[in-house]
Amino acid sequence: MQIMDLLKKRIVEDGTVLPGNVLKVDNFLNHQVDAQLMDKIGAEFARLFKDEKVTKVVTVESSGIAPALTTAIHLGVPLIFARKHKSLTLTDNLYTASVYSYTKQVSNDISVDKRFLNSDDRILIIDDFLANGQAVQGLLEIAKLADVSVAGIGIVIEKSFQKGHTLIEKAGIRLESLARIASLNDGKVTFVD
Amino acid sequence: MQIMDLLKKRIVEDGTVLPGNVLKVDNFLNHQVDAQLMDKIGAEFARLFKDEKVTKVVTVESSGIAPALTTAIHLGVPLIFARKHKSLTLTDNLYTASVYSYTKQVSNDISVDKRFLNSDDRILIIDDFLANGQAVQGLLEIAKLADVSVAGIGIVIEKSFQKGHTLIEKAGIRLESLARIASLNDGKVTFVD
Repeated sequence: MQIMDLLKKRIVEDGTVLPGNVLKVDNFLNHQVDAQLMDKIGAEFARLFKDEKVTKVVTVESSGIAPALTTAIHLGVPLIFARKHKSLTLTDNLYTASVYSYTKQVSNDISVDKRFLNSDDRILIIDDFLANGQAVQGLLEIAKLADVSVAGIGIVIEKSFQKGHTLIEKAGIRLESLARIASLNDGKVTFVD
Repeated sequence: MQIMDLLKKRIVEDGTVLPGNVLKVDNFLNHQVDAQLMDKIGAEFARLFKDEKVTKVVTVESSGIAPALTTAIHLGVPLIFARKHKSLTLTDNLYTASVYSYTKQVSNDISVDKRFLNSDDRILIIDDFLANGQAVQGLLEIAKLADVSVAGIGIVIEKSFQKGHTLIEKAGIRLESLARIASLNDGKVTFVD
């Protein structure tokens, strides 16, 4: 079975739809992790972006680390995970962006040490979920501060009905989402197409 | 070169010793991650524990995720990463333990959803660092609450002069550390042996 079909199957079988358009997939994606599935996900992102001259994979801790690491392994490049922290920390040596979490209703800073991004880097952003696109936007802001080019964005599960997809499309950045969810109405997962 | 020698070489070449016995390895282990090295680390833990009938690899977010994931991939079992959160959250459906961080001088709870650990599980605990052993102790407490057996503990870098090593030894649990540091005196890394 192709990885995209495997993933859809897992979402339907093991995902739970909660009130407020929340899709809970903590039994294979972001608390308990199906390591073999994650390896296949990384292989697929590496295949999709293999001609993009990616020098580094970038994500945000914590749930992004697993798919970003397997992608980096298959691409043969390093991974950077941006650190989350409360605002107002000393940040002289860091590229920092503010990220608002709709789920937790709180803003946090994310940051990457300046030593790890150089203007000749070309990064691939990987994350487990795309909803309103706040985390991706934070990483794009960091990419801009570091003056690196962005090869694209790879997402494991996209909630296509929220504004993240459109936001990335408008920015003209290549987006590859392995599973695209059209709606979570009535507790049921409906995929795009 | 063997993985343990490779790792020592990287620690000497790329690590920085900071005041207070801090070894900074954020350029290949826990901020920027050498994905290929991490894959080799996972393969080595899988080799060391291959006869231990491990059913799940368990770690704590965030820095533990990378070595724990590659270990889980090579063992062919799922990964669980315990979540950190502030205490006093509702925890009916969680196994929870309190973990004190000497670096941050604050206590946090770590927890694992009860659905993911069953009494017939045999877990392998993986972490990037072992110093005073607080995180490992928290995971052992969760293992006890969940009534699972512990196959062993795999650590990427152990500061053997702090109390974590002795603590695990006294508990009679198998410990495999890939790099063992005897001291960080005078800004210099000295390994055990």
